[in-house]
Amino acid sequence: MSNSTLKRLTTLRGQMAKQNINYYLMTNSDYHGSEYIGEHFQAIRHLTGFSGSNATAVITQTQAYLWTDGRYFLQAEKQLEGSSVTLMRIGEDDVPTVKEFIKKTIKKGETLAYDGRTINAADGEDYRSILKQAGAILDPKQDLLDQFWADRPPAAANPFFILDETYSGKSVKEKIAEIRKEMKSAGVDTHILSSLTDIAWTLNIRGADIAHVPVVMSYLIISLETCIWFLQEDVITQDQRAYLKENQIETRPYEAVEAYTDSLSGVSVLYDPETLNDRIVSGLSASVQRLTQPNPSELLKAVKNPVEIRNTVWAHIKDGVAFTKFMYWLKTKIGLEPVTELSAGEYLEDRRREQPSYLGPSFATICAYRGNAAMMHYQAAPDENAVLEPEGFLLVDSGGHYLEGTTDVTRTIALGKITHQMRQHFTAVLRANLALADAKFLEGCTGQNLDILAREPLWELGLDYKCGTGHGVGHILNVHEGPNAFRWKKRQGKDEDFALKAGMITTDEPGVYLAGEYGIRIENELLCKKAQKNEYGQFLCFETITYAPVDLDAVDAESLTEKEKMLLNQYHETVYKTLSPYLTAEETHWLKEYTRKI
Amino acid sequence: MSNSTLKRLTTLRGQMAKQNINYYLMTNSDYHGSEYIGEHFQAIRHLTGFSGSNATAVITQTQAYLWTDGRYFLQAEKQLEGSSVTLMRIGEDDVPTVKEFIKKTIKKGETLAYDGRTINAADGEDYRSILKQAGAILDPKQDLLDQFWADRPPAAANPFFILDETYSGKSVKEKIAEIRKEMKSAGVDTHILSSLTDIAWTLNIRGADIAHVPVVMSYLIISLETCIWFLQEDVITQDQRAYLKENQIETRPYEAVEAYTDSLSGVSVLYDPETLNDRIVSGLSASVQRLTQPNPSELLKAVKNPVEIRNTVWAHIKDGVAFTKFMYWLKTKIGLEPVTELSAGEYLEDRRREQPSYLGPSFATICAYRGNAAMMHYQAAPDENAVLEPEGFLLVDSGGHYLEGTTDVTRTIALGKITHQMRQHFTAVLRANLALADAKFLEGCTGQNLDILAREPLWELGLDYKCGTGHGVGHILNVHEGPNAFRWKKRQGKDEDFALKAGMITTDEPGVYLAGEYGIRIENELLCKKAQKNEYGQFLCFETITYAPVDLDAVDAESLTEKEKMLLNQYHETVYKTLSPYLTAEETHWLKEYTRKI
Repeated sequence: MSNSTLKRLTTLRGQMAKQNINYYLMTNSDYHGSEYIGEHFQAIRHLTGFSGSNATAVITQTQAYLWTDGRYFLQAEKQLEGSSVTLMRIGEDDVPTVKEFIKKTIKKGETLAYDGRTINAADGEDYRSILKQAGAILDPKQDLLDQFWADRPPAAANPFFILDETYSGKSVKEKIAEIRKEMKSAGVDTHILSSLTDIAWTLNIRGADIAHVPVVMSYLIISLETCIWFLQEDVITQDQRAYLKENQIETRPYEAVEAYTDSLSGVSVLYDPETLNDRIVSGLSASVQRLTQPNPSELLKAVKNPVEIRNTVWAHIKDGVAFTKFMYWLKTKIGLEPVTELSAGEYLEDRRREQPSYLGPSFATICAYRGNAAMMHYQAAPDENAVLEPEGFLLVDSGGHYLEGTTDVTRTIALGKITHQMRQHFTAVLRANLALADAKFLEGCTGQNLDILAREPLWELGLDYKCGTGHGVGHILNVHEGPNAFRWKKRQGKDEDFALKAGMITTDEPGVYLAGEYGIRIENELLCKKAQKNEYGQFLCFETITYAPVDLDAVDAESLTEKEKMLLNQYHETVYKTLSPYLTAEETHWLKEYTRKI
Repeated sequence: MSNSTLKRLTTLRGQMAKQNINYYLMTNSDYHGSEYIGEHFQAIRHLTGFSGSNATAVITQTQAYLWTDGRYFLQAEKQLEGSSVTLMRIGEDDVPTVKEFIKKTIKKGETLAYDGRTINAADGEDYRSILKQAGAILDPKQDLLDQFWADRPPAAANPFFILDETYSGKSVKEKIAEIRKEMKSAGVDTHILSSLTDIAWTLNIRGADIAHVPVVMSYLIISLETCIWFLQEDVITQDQRAYLKENQIETRPYEAVEAYTDSLSGVSVLYDPETLNDRIVSGLSASVQRLTQPNPSELLKAVKNPVEIRNTVWAHIKDGVAFTKFMYWLKTKIGLEPVTELSAGEYLEDRRREQPSYLGPSFATICAYRGNAAMMHYQAAPDENAVLEPEGFLLVDSGGHYLEGTTDVTRTIALGKITHQMRQHFTAVLRANLALADAKFLEGCTGQNLDILAREPLWELGLDYKCGTGHGVGHILNVHEGPNAFRWKKRQGKDEDFALKAGMITTDEPGVYLAGEYGIRIENELLCKKAQKNEYGQFLCFETITYAPVDLDAVDAESLTEKEKMLLNQYHETVYKTLSPYLTAEETHWLKEYTRKI
C-alpha cells in the first residue's frame, strides 16, 4: 500500500497547494453519518490503506495523520506501515483528539478544508469555533477525492424492497404518526432525517446501497402534513410508487435535498446534529428555528416491537443452526482436510445461505486464527489467509440478515491443544459473558451502570478489552445501532445516559486480546425484558437469544462457581433443545456432547 | 408537633401577607451550603417537626410542602402527621422537584421570597430564570424565621484548635500554594471559599460550630497574594493569631464578608455555585469575571495524604476496639439486664470515650431496633426509645472523630432468634458489601460504574435500598464528603462523573429496609489503593479499614460462594488480629468465636 499512498498524498498535496489549503480533513463518513459506508466514500482506505471503520485523516503539506480507536490499533499499525501516515491512537494519554490537534497546530490565516457533507453538524460547529479563535479560515465545500482517486466508484443507487408488516410489526403510517407526535410535543413543524437506518425503519423499506447495511441512500423530510423522500427516484418500481402514494410519501431527486433545505423559511426544524451533515445545517436560513436532539426514531427503533422480537428470535434459531453445523464440521474435520480462515468463513456463509429467507451477512465475517484474532477487527484476505491447524484458538465473529431479523455472534473455538493460560482466559471471558447476561436491575440503569459486571472477572486478572462490552443491534439494518450499549467510559461529548428498556437488543461480547498470541471473544445477543415490579420499581433482566455452543473444550470447570456452571448448563440445554430439531443425526449427537452438563 | 406547627405557620403566613409574599421558600441550609447545620439554622425542624437532614419547605397562604429523599420517607410521614404539611417524596413518579413545583404553580405578578444566604448560587440562578419566565417577582433577602421562632438560638461562635501537621500531613502554606496553582491554571486571581469543611481543611483548623462537624463558621477569600479569613474574631487566641500571621492569613469579622465581596471590582473570581450562596454571588459587581467550578480544595481534600491515611487507619482500630467491646457487652448481656436503644447507644459512646484522642461522635448515633431500623435515619429519643429484647435485629450506625481521623461504621446485630427471611436478607447484604469491597477496576471508573457490584446481590432477590451505596468520608470534618460516592443513578443537574482515585475513602453500606419489620445495613469504609499497572492501565482496588465483626449469628453460610466465604474469613482474621491486643481476655475469647472461619 505504501507506494500508492505516497503517490496519492503527493497528488492531493499538489491540489491543496494550488487552492491554498493547509489542512485537509477527511472522515470515514458518507453524507449521512453512517458507520459503514459505500465504496464511493472509502477515500481514507484508498488513500492510506487502512480499512478500519473508525478513521479520520488530516493531511498537511508535510504530514499525514490517521485517528482510530483501540479496536483497530494493531490492524492500523500493520496497514499503515511504510505509508508515512502517523497513527493517532484515540484515548491514549497525550494523544490529542482531531479537534485538539487542529486547535493546537493551525496558525492564523491558514486554511482548513473539508467536504461539509462528510462532517456532522456538531463537529462542523466545533471546527468553526476552533478556527475562529485561531484566526484561521474554514473552506467547507472541498471534495478533493477525485484528485487522487481516478477510478472512484459511483455513488450507489440500488433497488430496494418493502418490508412487509408481518416482519416490521408496525405500519409506516403508525411510525410517521409516532414521529409527528414527538415533533408536536417538542414544538417543531419540520424534521430533517438523514440517518439511513432511521429512514429505512420509518418507511419499512430495505435497500442495498451499503454493503451489509440494507439501506437506501436518501433523506426524509417530515412536516406535520407532508413527508418527502429524497432518493435516486429511477429505482422505484410501480408497486413501490403505489405503496408510497398510499402512505402519502412524496419523492424528489436525492440531489435536490440541499436546495430544498436551503429554501426552508420561517419553520422550526428538529434534527440530530450528530448525524445531519454540516452542509445542510449551515445552509439553513436564519429564519429557521433549530431544535437539536437525537432523532425521535432512534429510540422508537431501538425498542423492538413484539413482532420484531418474535421474528428476531426466529432469525437467531436459523443462525444458530448454521453456526452449529459449521462448528461441527470444523471440530470434526480440522487436521483431516485443509482449512484456511477464508475457507472456514465461506463454509459458514454457505450454511447461512441454506437457511430460508437469508439475505446476506450483517457485516464482514471475522475468521481469525491465533494472533490474527488479537486484532479485534481483522479481515482475512487472499494474500493474508492463515491455514488452520489442529491447535490454538480460532475466533469467528459473524452474523446474518434474515427477513426476520439480524444476528451477530462470536465464538472462539479450540482447534486442538491450548495452553493453560488460554484456558484460564477463555474461562474468564465466559464468566464475564455469563455475569452480564444474568443481570437483574432496576429500570433506569444504563449500559454504564452494567458494564462492570462483564468487566470485573477480567479486571480481577489484570486483563481488559479496549472497547465497549456490547452494542445495540438493528432489525435488518445496521448491526451496530444505538442508543443502547454497554460501555463503562463516558465518551467525550456524547450523552450516554440512555436507560436500557424492555425490547432493546444488545450484544454481550467481552474478550481477551493478546497481541501476536490469540484473541478470545464470546458474543451473545441479550434481549432486555421486564422482570418483577414491586415497591422498589420495575426490574429488568435479559434473555440470551443467541443459540450456539460455547466450546467446552476450552472451559476450565474448576474456575467456575456453582452458579456459573448452572448458568452455562441452562444455556447449553436451551441451545440443544432449540437447535437439535434442525440438525442431522450426527450433528445432534455432536451437539449433545458439546452442550453436556459440566 | 402538629399544634405548634399550625400556630407557627399562622404567624409566618401573617407576616407573608403583610409583605405580599405568596411563596416562602426555606431550605435546611446555613449560609455555607453545609449538609449538617447549626441550631441557629434548624428552622424547618422548628416549623414542621421534621428533623431529617435533607429538607426544603415551601409555604403558601393555604398550603405547606416539604421535600425530602428516600432515606427519610418513613420518618417524615411519622413526624409530619397532623401538621398539615404535605410530604413531597423526591424521586418518586409524578412528584415535581421544588423548582418544577414553583414553575408550575406560581402566577404572574406573585412573589417568591427567600433568604438568599440559605440558597446556593446555582439554585438562585434557576429561580431567577423560572420567575422571569412566569412574570413573577423574586424577593431574595427575606429572613422571616424570627417571626415564628422567638427563642431562636444565636449563631455559633465557638473556639477552634489548630490541627498539628503530624495529623494533617500537609502545612497550610502547601495547601494554599496548591489552591493558588489551580487558580493560576484556571486564569483567575480570586477564589471565594464558603464551604466550611474546605476552609477547615485548608487552614488546618478544627472548630465546634456545627454539632458533629468540627468547623468554624467563616469565609475564606484567597487571592494570588492575600488570604482573608472572615470569622467571629473574638474566639482567636494569641497563639492562633501568631499561627495565622506566620501563614500570612489576615482576619476580618464574619459579618464583613458581604460588604467585601460586593466591593470586589475588576477581578476574576472562581467559586463553586453549589456551595457559595446567592446573596454573595448576586452582589458581585458586573466588572467581576466569574468562573464557576467545584472548589479546588474539594478534590485535594478527598484524596487523603499518606499521613492522613496512616492516622485514619489508627482511628479505625480504636473505633473497632470500642465497637467490639460494645458488641461483646450487647451479645452477652441482652436478656439479662434492661437495655434500650438509647442506653445501648450510650454504652457504645462510653466505650469510644475511653479511647485516647477521641473528640466526639461524627454524627448522631442511629441505634434502631426492629422496625425502627427500616427508617434509615431514625433517631431514638427519650419519648421514643424501644426496649431491646433477646430477639430480632438491632441496627447500630455510628462513628467518631479522633485526632487521627473520622470513622463511620454500621453493624446489624441479631439479639436472639431471627426468621429465615431475616437471615437471607442479612446474608444478601453481606454479599453486597463484600462484592464492592473486592472490586478491582481501572483508573477512570466512577462510583456510578461500581455501584451495581453491591446492588446486584439484592436486585437478584427483588430488593433495593433507596439511597447511594456509599459516601466519601472527611478527615475530622463532615462524615459525608464528596466528590467520591457510590451511586448508580445520576442526580439531576449534578456532575457525578468523578473518577475514584487512590487515597479516597468511601463507605460501602448496602442495606435492606422493610417498613415496620426491620432494617439491615453493613457498613465498612474502603480506602482506594493502587493495584497493578500494565498495558491496560492503572488498576485500583480497595482496602477495608473498618474493623468490627460481622455478626455470624445472622449469616447463612450456605448462601455464600466459596469466594465470599474466603473474603469474609480473611476480613474476620484481620479484625481479630488487629483488635485482640486491645481487648480483655473475655472479649478476646468472644471475638475469636465471632471471627471464626465459616
